[in-house]
Amino acid sequence: MSRQDIIAYLGTDWDRMLALIRESLSSDVGLLGQTNGRILSNSGKLLRPQLSLLMSRALGTPTEDSVRFAAATELFHNATLLHDDVADGSTQRRGRPTVAALLGPSAAVLVGDFWLARAVDLVVEAEHREAAIRLFSNTLTDLAEGEMLQLEKASSADTTMQDYLRIIHCKTASLFSAAAQTAAVSVDAPAALLDAARAFAEAFGTAFQIKDDILDYAGTDALGKPVGVDLRECKITLPLLGALEGSPREEEIRTMVRQIPEHPEYCDEIRRFVLERDGIARAVGCLGEWVDRAVKALDAFPDGPAREALVEIAHYNVWREV
Amino acid sequence: MSRQDIIAYLGTDWDRMLALIRESLSSDVGLLGQTNGRILSNSGKLLRPQLSLLMSRALGTPTEDSVRFAAATELFHNATLLHDDVADGSTQRRGRPTVAALLGPSAAVLVGDFWLARAVDLVVEAEHREAAIRLFSNTLTDLAEGEMLQLEKASSADTTMQDYLRIIHCKTASLFSAAAQTAAVSVDAPAALLDAARAFAEAFGTAFQIKDDILDYAGTDALGKPVGVDLRECKITLPLLGALEGSPREEEIRTMVRQIPEHPEYCDEIRRFVLERDGIARAVGCLGEWVDRAVKALDAFPDGPAREALVEIAHYNVWREV
Repeated sequence: MSRQDIIAYLGTDWDRMLALIRESLSSDVGLLGQTNGRILSNSGKLLRPQLSLLMSRALGTPTEDSVRFAAATELFHNATLLHDDVADGSTQRRGRPTVAALLGPSAAVLVGDFWLARAVDLVVEAEHREAAIRLFSNTLTDLAEGEMLQLEKASSADTTMQDYLRIIHCKTASLFSAAAQTAAVSVDAPAALLDAARAFAEAFGTAFQIKDDILDYAGTDALGKPVGVDLRECKITLPLLGALEGSPREEEIRTMVRQIPEHPEYCDEIRRFVLERDGIARAVGCLGEWVDRAVKALDAFPDGPAREALVEIAHYNVWREV
Repeated sequence: MSRQDIIAYLGTDWDRMLALIRESLSSDVGLLGQTNGRILSNSGKLLRPQLSLLMSRALGTPTEDSVRFAAATELFHNATLLHDDVADGSTQRRGRPTVAALLGPSAAVLVGDFWLARAVDLVVEAEHREAAIRLFSNTLTDLAEGEMLQLEKASSADTTMQDYLRIIHCKTASLFSAAAQTAAVSVDAPAALLDAARAFAEAFGTAFQIKDDILDYAGTDALGKPVGVDLRECKITLPLLGALEGSPREEEIRTMVRQIPEHPEYCDEIRRFVLERDGIARAVGCLGEWVDRAVKALDAFPDGPAREALVEIAHYNVWREV
């Protein structure tokens, strides 16, 4: 199924989800309504609500709660993007100026808070509100813990594989997991299927972030994202971790990473080290394992088009650009 | 009652509230735990949890929910301060470096989100969770709407009294009101007293913000806050609004406000205009009316030390610095 086919398959649930998002973001403060509209019209491929609605379809018959939780997931995701843009000082997102660039950081932080508030409002009205609020609030906690752990490791440069996996769980997989679990909850899926939904989303989200981390080494600026950013910020990600494994130069390279702020020229040498030690190929191998793990988690699911579509979005969104 | 007396009067409820905040902010990510500890140790006079706990004491016997909601109010308030510091690029708060200055904007936004998440977690565990989540989420919406309305008005310079009152409701009074209402809900106060609690907090919060806006004209840098900031950011607040009322120079002055970004020297002339037209005295008169309105709302409350303490915190926190 292509993305178009998936949207067509989701049918009125998809349309109701989009309408609910639009409704949630209306405001009689003109500038806020306009800003929300601009963000919405540039909202990318809406992967997370696809994941959410496919999951509720795979495990039952989507309910009013399913639509609410899918909408809340997207609002939540956009809130974190608004905050990220302030945090990074990004002036562009998907080729258009960010809210931070157009209206200043103050507006972007508070518009992000507004989207968070609307996500909470949607969830509070739901029948399964309690489980869902807990899941989304855990994700908000994870995002902050991941960021702080990453910051801590950026100054010590002693990131282990375990640290790395925790960081990418926090910054990416946690929201995928909340999307899948709230969807499962919305159709009262039994515990075993809820666990499978979580396992799928957790592995898919992990793979999705590993793909981003590989592209930061192997991509080109032509894809629209600048490359080499992680290393410049002293972040040790999977390609470098793989290269370090078993290398006699491990201590030397980690010391260089720590010194990048004073010696940006070290980046080139470290990148050469990653290439020579097959760091990218190893990371791609690891990526494949996570995709397999995601697909394997769906073994527990009933057969059908929704299950197939979940397999496809996992493959498509992870492999397309690698 | 002095602040010390109020804390002593609140007794174990106050201690449990502080313990709950500390517990909520613990994290096994070292840098996050340390950062939270640093913010906590610089948390000022804790006015909002005082308001919250006094309110539940005035209307009944504080419950587990009362303590939770007071703690959540403070977490919520600090989350918004963390976001404000990023938004304003502030490097100091209460004489110490901000998280944004120490760890960068990225960390400050996400630590703010972490505090928000912990506030939500506290509320979700409460018995009266539904009403409380709705109240706090409304406040988050208000904060964003207020900021955007203020931004919109900063470029048009056509702020009316109605706009001004809406902006200060959104940016300050809304959280006071959520604190008071969640406290009333926590002790199952009857509807008439819940309304009175809201009316008190709304008027107190309005007065509290008017005081800040007066100090921006009448204060000195010695109080620890820079003065004249609002006007430099083209914000029309109460002292200027009062001065404009009935003045033949209204259009001329509003045009000058709009041109401040290109002509910062206009600020001095506008400040002179405010002084000559008794703008500060008029604003102080208005402040007095709001304090009276707050105190009057407490007529509906049962007599007792908690009611008295509420009268006192309203007077003390509004008049002390004016």
